[in-house]
This record gives sequence, C-alpha cells and structure tokens, in this order.
Amino acid sequence: MNLILVEPDERRADGTLRLSGPRARHIADVLKAQPGDSIRLGVLDGPLGTGTITSLTKEAIELSCALEDRIPPRPRVDLLLALPRPKIMRRLWAPLAALGVGRIFLTNAWKVERMYFDSHAVRPEVYRPLLIEGLQQARDTRLPEVRVFKQFKVLVEDELPGLFPEGLRLMARPAAGKAIQAAISEVHPARVLLAVGPEGGWIPYEEDLLMRHGFQPVSMGPRTLRADTACVALLALLNEEMRGAALDHS
Amino acid sequence: MNLILVEPDERRADGTLRLSGPRARHIADVLKAQPGDSIRLGVLDGPLGTGTITSLTKEAIELSCALEDRIPPRPRVDLLLALPRPKIMRRLWAPLAALGVGRIFLTNAWKVERMYFDSHAVRPEVYRPLLIEGLQQARDTRLPEVRVFKQFKVLVEDELPGLFPEGLRLMARPAAGKAIQAAISEVHPARVLLAVGPEGGWIPYEEDLLMRHGFQPVSMGPRTLRADTACVALLALLNEEMRGAALDHS
Repeated sequence: MNLILVEPDERRADGTLRLSGPRARHIADVLKAQPGDSIRLGVLDGPLGTGTITSLTKEAIELSCALEDRIPPRPRVDLLLALPRPKIMRRLWAPLAALGVGRIFLTNAWKVERMYFDSHAVRPEVYRPLLIEGLQQARDTRLPEVRVFKQFKVLVEDELPGLFPEGLRLMARPAAGKAIQAAISEVHPARVLLAVGPEGGWIPYEEDLLMRHGFQPVSMGPRTLRADTACVALLALLNEEMRGAALDHS
Repeated sequence: MNLILVEPDERRADGTLRLSGPRARHIADVLKAQPGDSIRLGVLDGPLGTGTITSLTKEAIELSCALEDRIPPRPRVDLLLALPRPKIMRRLWAPLAALGVGRIFLTNAWKVERMYFDSHAVRPEVYRPLLIEGLQQARDTRLPEVRVFKQFKVLVEDELPGLFPEGLRLMARPAAGKAIQAAISEVHPARVLLAVGPEGGWIPYEEDLLMRHGFQPVSMGPRTLRADTACVALLALLNEEMRGAALDHS
C-alpha cells in the first residue's frame, strides 16, 4: 500500500477520520507510524492528501486529514474486454487499476464461456477490493467503473454510442499492421476505448462488427499474448502514448 | 499453444519427429488435427516451420518437419530483476517469455529476502517449462537465458561488463523524468538492459551503484506498479520502441 484509501463517508465533517481493520494494521505494523506522523491518504474518487495521526491504539487510529483541492483526473483509456476465465479475470483487477483505466466494459463473445459470468470474479464485492488494492499500489483515487454486458451485439450497436460517444476506438489484433503509437499520434484523442478479444480471438463476425463501429485494428507486433498479459501490455503502451500526447499539448 | 516447440534432439536426422504426452494430446484433442494436416512447429533456439502429420495413434504422433532456413532473432531487451517473492516470480516466467526477453538476470538486493533464492520458482526444472509455455503462446523459439546472482554488487561491478558490454542500460524508477521512448530514440541501441527493483525499490546505495555503472533512470509516469505488472508493462514499452526503431532503420 503506497496510499491509504478511504470511502467518502468515512471522513467526518470536521476532517477527522477513524480507521480500524487492515488499513489500521498496515499503518501500525508496516508503516510503523506513530502519533504525530503523517501518512499518504486518498478519498475514493476524491482528492489525494495526507493524514496526521492524532491517536493510535490497538483498536483504531484517529487521523486529521488535509486534502488537496483537485481530484486526480480519470484515466483517459477505457477497456472493452471479452471476459477471460475467472482465474485470469480475478488476477487482472488490481493490475488494471494500478496501470490506470477509466472504465472496464466486460463482454460476452463467441469464444467466452457463458458460465464465466456466474463466477465470483465478476461480483462487485470481489472485484471492488481488488481494484482498490491496485489504486493503493499506484497512488490513485479514481476507481474504474465496471459494466458487464452479456450480449456483445447489444453492447456494440446499442450501448456504445451512449457510453463512448467520442474518442478513438481501437481493437488489439496481433500483426494488425498499425502501431498504437501511430494511431494515437494521428488524432491526439481525448479518450481511447481499447477492445481486447478472448483467448482464441474474436470471430470474423465480431471483428467486422467492431470495425463497422469505428474500431481500428492496432498491434504490438507479431507475438500473440495471453489476454491478461495483453491487457497489461496494451494499457501500458496506451497510457504512455496518451501521457506523451498530453505532454506535447502542454 | 499457438506453436508446438520441440527440443533439437527430438528431431531425427531424416527430419521426422515422434511426439507423445501433452503436446501430442494438444494436437489431437485441441487442434483436432488428422493425418495429412500441417501444424505450426518450432525447434527450441532453432527455426520455425511446419510439421505434417504422417500418423496419429493414441500413443504418439509422427510428423515430417519442414523448417525455415533462418532462426528468429533473439529479443533485443534483457532484464535485470531483483528477485520477486516466489509466487510472483512463478507467475512471471511465461509472460516474460511471451513478451520477448533475451536474457533474465535475477539478483539479490537489500529488500529481497534471502530465502527467495531457495524457492522452487528459481529452479530450471520449474521455470524452463513455464518459459516454453510463453514461447508457445507467442510463437517464438528463443528461450530466454536465465542467470541467478546472489550478490548484487558482484553482478553490477564484476559480471555486467562481460555479460552486457555494449548497449543501453536503463533502470525503471517511477517519476524518474525521462520517458523510455526518449531514452531509446536518442541512441537507437542494438540492445537494452532494463533493471527493475524489488517491492519497495532499490536502496540509495543500489541506485547509486547502478547509475555509476551507466544505468539511466526512466519512467512510465508517476504510478508505482507491483514488480510483475511493472516488468510486463516496461517490457511491452521497450519492445515496442525497439521494434519502432528497427522499422525506422529498415
């Protein structure tokens, strides 16, 4: 934990905060903080700041918070991901949040097993703590928004126009030709939506549907990666390109 | 498996090959190949090619191989990694090989627990099959070379001049300032060696030692990532930049 995240309603009106449980134990046992010490703190979907410890007992820690005025911007890349098998999905939540992703749209596809949608890995009570773990690692407060779609066609045709009206739509495809860098630098988009297919790939019908809805194939070269490695690698590349584009603009 | 990899000595002098075990089961049950069909095949650290099935029984598959003349180039990025805890290291082998890495130097560091070096995760009989799994995923034949160093200072001062005499040396550090893209495009190196620290980072002595030996700090932005996510993200970025640099040259 490089940051302690708290829920908005945990902070009292006077700016103080009481922590117990794993976060309190982390502050006491790992950070070895003492009364008077300040620790890095953030409010979920709110500002970053610091918390000064006013009292520390075995049961709980009392802090007085000083928060920044601004809220970190939402990451500018969204992910449309064919739901991987539960073991892989479970492992992906924290890295996705750590790398930084605005929204995660999970979708069915021809090569996705229906039963994956019944797994624990797509339950908010399972993935939310994992997303928070990733944010605490990366020192961010912006919780990715997660939406689950059981019908790929409905998502692409009916939902996406509302969910992602503007911005650049990309689909990852090994050996697609165009590099991510080229796709970004051509248009300097405000937001990017990246589609990543299932193990074994999209079927031609799905690829066609995506392309007819503006998704442009991009590639990181000829190597085929497992879905989880591909997501991490592609998000890293996209965020780096978007960061570069933002720096160019500033 | 997007490629069946075989050991050089599995191929007979006449170019035929007999497979049994998991690879044969994969060909029969997953690829559902029949006699007469061709499958993608590669020789470890040798060429890619195809194998035409000449006979297929419950016990074994006989193939006749046609291999390319050239051997895929060794990936141009090497990794110097402070040994992560065993669970993380075990999980990293396949993605590292899939992304493409020439050599992996595992090292001790102040924040690495000594006992990690006694774990299964650093035994060749454990990691070699995982590296091969990654190569089969990415359709590559070049097995990363792995070296384990229990003394960081000895590695950096005495071994690296021989192991990595030329090329660009980089060290990952969040918020280091220089972007990877900038570091690569300045010098168009033939090879890159990337140093990734332990959870909690290198201590100042270790950073100094690396910098005095030519390692230049690079960053992917302010987010701190877990070692495994950082390795995948950084390798993806570096390989993409090196690929871009190679395309520029061609």
